[in-house]
Amino acid sequence: SKDKWQDNSTAGVVTGLAWTAVGGEILFVETSLSKGKGKLTLTGNLGDVMKESALLALEYLRANTDKLGLKTESFDEWNVHVHVPEGAIPKDGPSAGVTMVTSLASAFTQRKVRARLAMTGEITLRGKVLPVGGIKEKILAAKRAGITDIILSHENQKDIEEINDIYLEGLEFHFVKEVEEVLKLALLDEKVKKPLAI
Amino acid sequence: SKDKWQDNSTAGVVTGLAWTAVGGEILFVETSLSKGKGKLTLTGNLGDVMKESALLALEYLRANTDKLGLKTESFDEWNVHVHVPEGAIPKDGPSAGVTMVTSLASAFTQRKVRARLAMTGEITLRGKVLPVGGIKEKILAAKRAGITDIILSHENQKDIEEINDIYLEGLEFHFVKEVEEVLKLALLDEKVKKPLAI
Amino acid sequence: SKDKWQDNSTAGVVTGLAWTAVGGEILFVETSLSKGKGKLTLTGNLGDVMKESALLALEYLRANTDKLGLKTESFDEWNVHVHVPEGAIPKDGPSAGVTMVTSLASAFTQRKVRARLAMTGEITLRGKVLPVGGIKEKILAAKRAGITDIILSHENQKDIEEINDIYLEGLEFHFVKEVEEVLKLALLDEKVKKPLAI
Amino acid sequence: SKDKWQDNSTAGVVTGLAWTAVGGEILFVETSLSKGKGKLTLTGNLGDVMKESALLALEYLRANTDKLGLKTESFDEWNVHVHVPEGAIPKDGPSAGVTMVTSLASAFTQRKVRARLAMTGEITLRGKVLPVGGIKEKILAAKRAGITDIILSHENQKDIEEINDIYLEGLEFHFVKEVEEVLKLALLDEKVKKPLAI
Amino acid sequence: SKDKWQDNSTAGVVTGLAWTAVGGEILFVETSLSKGKGKLTLTGNLGDVMKESALLALEYLRANTDKLGLKTESFDEWNVHVHVPEGAIPKDGPSAGVTMVTSLASAFTQRKVRARLAMTGEITLRGKVLPVGGIKEKILAAKRAGITDIILSHENQKDIEEINDIYLEGLEFHFVKEVEEVLKLALLDEKVKKPLAI
Amino acid sequence: SKDKWQDNSTAGVVTGLAWTAVGGEILFVETSLSKGKGKLTLTGNLGDVMKESALLALEYLRANTDKLGLKTESFDEWNVHVHVPEGAIPKDGPSAGVTMVTSLASAFTQRKVRARLAMTGEITLRGKVLPVGGIKEKILAAKRAGITDIILSHENQKDIEEINDIYLEGLEFHFVKEVEEVLKLALLDEKVKKPLAI
Ligand SMILES: [Ca+2]
Ligand SMILES: [Ca+2]
Ligand SMILES: [Ca+2]
Ligand SMILES: [Ca+2]
Ligand SMILES: [Ca+2]
Ligand SMILES: [Ca+2]
Ligand SMILES: [Ca+2]
Ligand SMILES: [Ca+2]
Ligand SMILES: [Ca+2]
Ligand SMILES: [Ca+2]
Ligand SMILES: [Ca+2]
Ligand SMILES: [Ca+2]
Repeated sequence: SKDKWQDNSTAGVVTGLAWTAVGGEILFVETSLSKGKGKLTLTGNLGDVMKESALLALEYLRANTDKLGLKTESFDEWNVHVHVPEGAIPKDGPSAGVTMVTSLASAFTQRKVRARLAMTGEITLRGKVLPVGGIKEKILAAKRAGITDIILSHENQKDIEEINDIYLEGLEFHFVKEVEEVLKLALLDEKVKKPLAI
Repeated sequence: SKDKWQDNSTAGVVTGLAWTAVGGEILFVETSLSKGKGKLTLTGNLGDVMKESALLALEYLRANTDKLGLKTESFDEWNVHVHVPEGAIPKDGPSAGVTMVTSLASAFTQRKVRARLAMTGEITLRGKVLPVGGIKEKILAAKRAGITDIILSHENQKDIEEINDIYLEGLEFHFVKEVEEVLKLALLDEKVKKPLAI
Repeated sequence: SKDKWQDNSTAGVVTGLAWTAVGGEILFVETSLSKGKGKLTLTGNLGDVMKESALLALEYLRANTDKLGLKTESFDEWNVHVHVPEGAIPKDGPSAGVTMVTSLASAFTQRKVRARLAMTGEITLRGKVLPVGGIKEKILAAKRAGITDIILSHENQKDIEEINDIYLEGLEFHFVKEVEEVLKLALLDEKVKKPLAI
Repeated sequence: SKDKWQDNSTAGVVTGLAWTAVGGEILFVETSLSKGKGKLTLTGNLGDVMKESALLALEYLRANTDKLGLKTESFDEWNVHVHVPEGAIPKDGPSAGVTMVTSLASAFTQRKVRARLAMTGEITLRGKVLPVGGIKEKILAAKRAGITDIILSHENQKDIEEINDIYLEGLEFHFVKEVEEVLKLALLDEKVKKPLAI
Repeated sequence: SKDKWQDNSTAGVVTGLAWTAVGGEILFVETSLSKGKGKLTLTGNLGDVMKESALLALEYLRANTDKLGLKTESFDEWNVHVHVPEGAIPKDGPSAGVTMVTSLASAFTQRKVRARLAMTGEITLRGKVLPVGGIKEKILAAKRAGITDIILSHENQKDIEEINDIYLEGLEFHFVKEVEEVLKLALLDEKVKKPLAI
Repeated sequence: SKDKWQDNSTAGVVTGLAWTAVGGEILFVETSLSKGKGKLTLTGNLGDVMKESALLALEYLRANTDKLGLKTESFDEWNVHVHVPEGAIPKDGPSAGVTMVTSLASAFTQRKVRARLAMTGEITLRGKVLPVGGIKEKILAAKRAGITDIILSHENQKDIEEINDIYLEGLEFHFVKEVEEVLKLALLDEKVKKPLAI
């Protein structure tokens, strides 16, 4: 099934965790860069709040280029397209914030994303990671999908403590306060094969 | 009737398979290029998700020019118009993704599309082909229209296996995981007559 | 009454056939060009599908300048305004496609339109002419208006065969498959008086 | 009361006739030009069809500069603002077409408008004047406002013939087919005081 | 309470009179200029008709720079922001026209506005001042707020004559026909302290 | 919990007070600057009136650069992004005006914001601070969050006087009339670590 962790060979592809009417799900955030003038395109049947997450993620990176060794000019010389499959499913809410900022950071650095990692959490403009809902359902979906490491806001730690241990077996949790910690955990030093010259 | 496979003399015309309230249908995706500055026009009474498929298809090609021998500049020097007849019928959903990316690729390469070929499948930004619904009805429509080869997501193989063999006679199925496979199957080396100099 | 064929002295004025709740009607599509930068203006209380017909018609001409001896630059050096009187009546649907492409072609060539000619049919981006509905009512309206020649999609021939001959007297039908045939039938070699230098 | 004909000292101010739920009314169309780049602003609580009338009027003049001795460049060097008082009253419909084209023509020529003249009629892009409704109510309003000359479409002549002569006393009717006739009737040779150098 | 006349030390602040469900009110129109390219920003929870008043006011000034000794270039070199506190209250209607044009004129001239003056009236593009409603309630609000001088359309004079004299004590009325009169009454020769160099 | 005052190490982060259906809340306004052309982005699920507050705040600073030692060019050379977490909660109303102007001023000066300070109040374009509602609930929320100093409009002083003293213990109130006073109270002379060179 497609609801499995896949691989980390492509820059800009990050696994997120979503919570829908029928339970938890994994989702992928994909970022593609192409030479251009800094245009941002958002697809995947996204609601306004989820689109705002992408704006926040992009602005966070623009304002923190130094932390990732990015060049300010890159943001004006590449078009950015962020997509969240699957198109038939409407998606909204702020909880893909960490996934989006990691996807964008991977695309702009061309660094690989850690294998078998998933994440969920709202981000703010100054780089805080806020807690989100549906943690139990998301954890179950992550296990089913073959995930081994999960990044959450430190304010979601209490939600994990309430889950029966048998559901947590084989999962390692990384509780964070800042986007900077997310990126350190999620991005490998290794670049993808044939990286773009950004 | 117009619901027949027609011919492959024009670049950018690809046969897709749709699923409506009254059964399966074939549809045509048409791409036309004209000298310009990279403007994209989408017509055919398309819903938002179907328009997103066109954005995904175009971005996939921009980000993978090397795989098709395309020039990056082409996307800024030609206006792109994608149309899906018939205008009176509202259309939506992600399942024309593969058809759109093939139509655009044929237009930008001016290569002919394989004869008597139809396809259906969602695409993602990194080039995955996702399964879609209504496979049985679409297969019946393809047969009626004189199609002999059909491209589907490998995740739709199980849907074919459930169809009675008598309906599949004379049809060859090509199950794919990646957009790259779609384009290799669908585009002939031969260019159309009087190709545009792109 | 204004519902009469008028004359062909002005470039860009073409007679179409419409089908409304109260029967068939003739309508006029008017195109006016003025020096500019290629801006397109559409008026006449047109719905989205009818506006798409104008986009299709204009793109067809841009992509087929050679067939009509047009210059590519013309489309960037002239503003195009397409109007369908009367403003109080909302209009929609794809059936004015042939009328719009003929109107635009007459404007850009400054060639006269054949006298006492009317037409109805959807167009596609690659130049196919598709069948439309309400043929019987449209034919009656055409006769009342003094029309003698009517262009239809070849797929509407069966609709004509079902009409009693007494209603067809004095009418000559031209069944076409391609926009190219429409333009050959509709545009005279003769230019209008005081043609624009396009 | 303000519902009186006023004077013709200002270029671009023309008296129209409207038909509302509570009877006929006179209205004023005002056009103001200011140095700029051809931007068009429309105010006065206007509906979409009435805004289209302004677009038609402006395009008619752009395409017929020769008939009025206008310079093509003027349309790109002046901003055009068309207003129809009073702002609290929503207005729509095509019947102010002749009033708008006369207002714009007076503004661009700085010629005075004939005194005590009112008009009503739809215009088309090629310059036809089409009939409109509410003629009887509009005539009564014109008389009350001190109007002596009224321009109508020749297709509205039958409506005048049905009105009792006592209501027509003191009114002279000018029936026209073309916008060109309207402008010849409405614009005086005399320019306004301190005309703009257009 | 804030519903008092305040002072005239700031250019661009003018007192208007509004009429709401709960009686008359004074309101302030504030205009701020900052170096820019002529962008207009309108805030204060304004409806479409009230926004049109600001467009009319600005265009009137652009077209009548000579009357106020303004430079045409000023309108392209300064951004204009017009605000009407308070943001929580939706506002609409044309009656702030005179207040807006005075606010803009004060900002562009940096001239002080006459002390203890309030006004209400619709404006037209050619500079007429039209009557508005709610005069009695507005007058009472003006008195409560410490206003001594009120500008109204000459067509509102009849409304004042119907108000009992005891309510009018201490108020001086200025009935006008033209925007030009409003500005002569409202703008002092004296400039504000530290005027902008416009 | 996140509903605590946090720290003042980041420029552009200011604590506001909100009033919702379920009581008072603190909120944070975050401003981030990045090199650009003066584009303004507003996120946080903000309603139209709250977006207007940001426009007012930005324009106030543009028009009063001298008071804060800002350079006019800064506003055209930096993109401004204002965000109000949390994205899932719709927010509206004018009461964040003072918080927004302080957030923007801190970002453009890179000065620290006073510790343990919160504020609520509408602003106007000329820099007045207007009273807002829900004062009692906001005060309780501020105490819970560890706030010690609160800025309010002088017109809200009466609301404080009606609150039982035991709720006010440990809180110092600063009643203001002008935005200028807010900024003097809220911005420390000290800059943040590694300030941007604006
Ligand atoms: Ca799924
Ligand atoms: Ca691990
Ligand atoms: Ca069909
Ligand atoms: Ca085969
Ligand atoms: Ca008709
Ligand atoms: Ca014939
Ligand atoms: Ca009236
Ligand atoms: Ca006469
Ligand atoms: Ca008030
Ligand atoms: Ca006085
Ligand atoms: Ca909260
Ligand atoms: Ca203190």
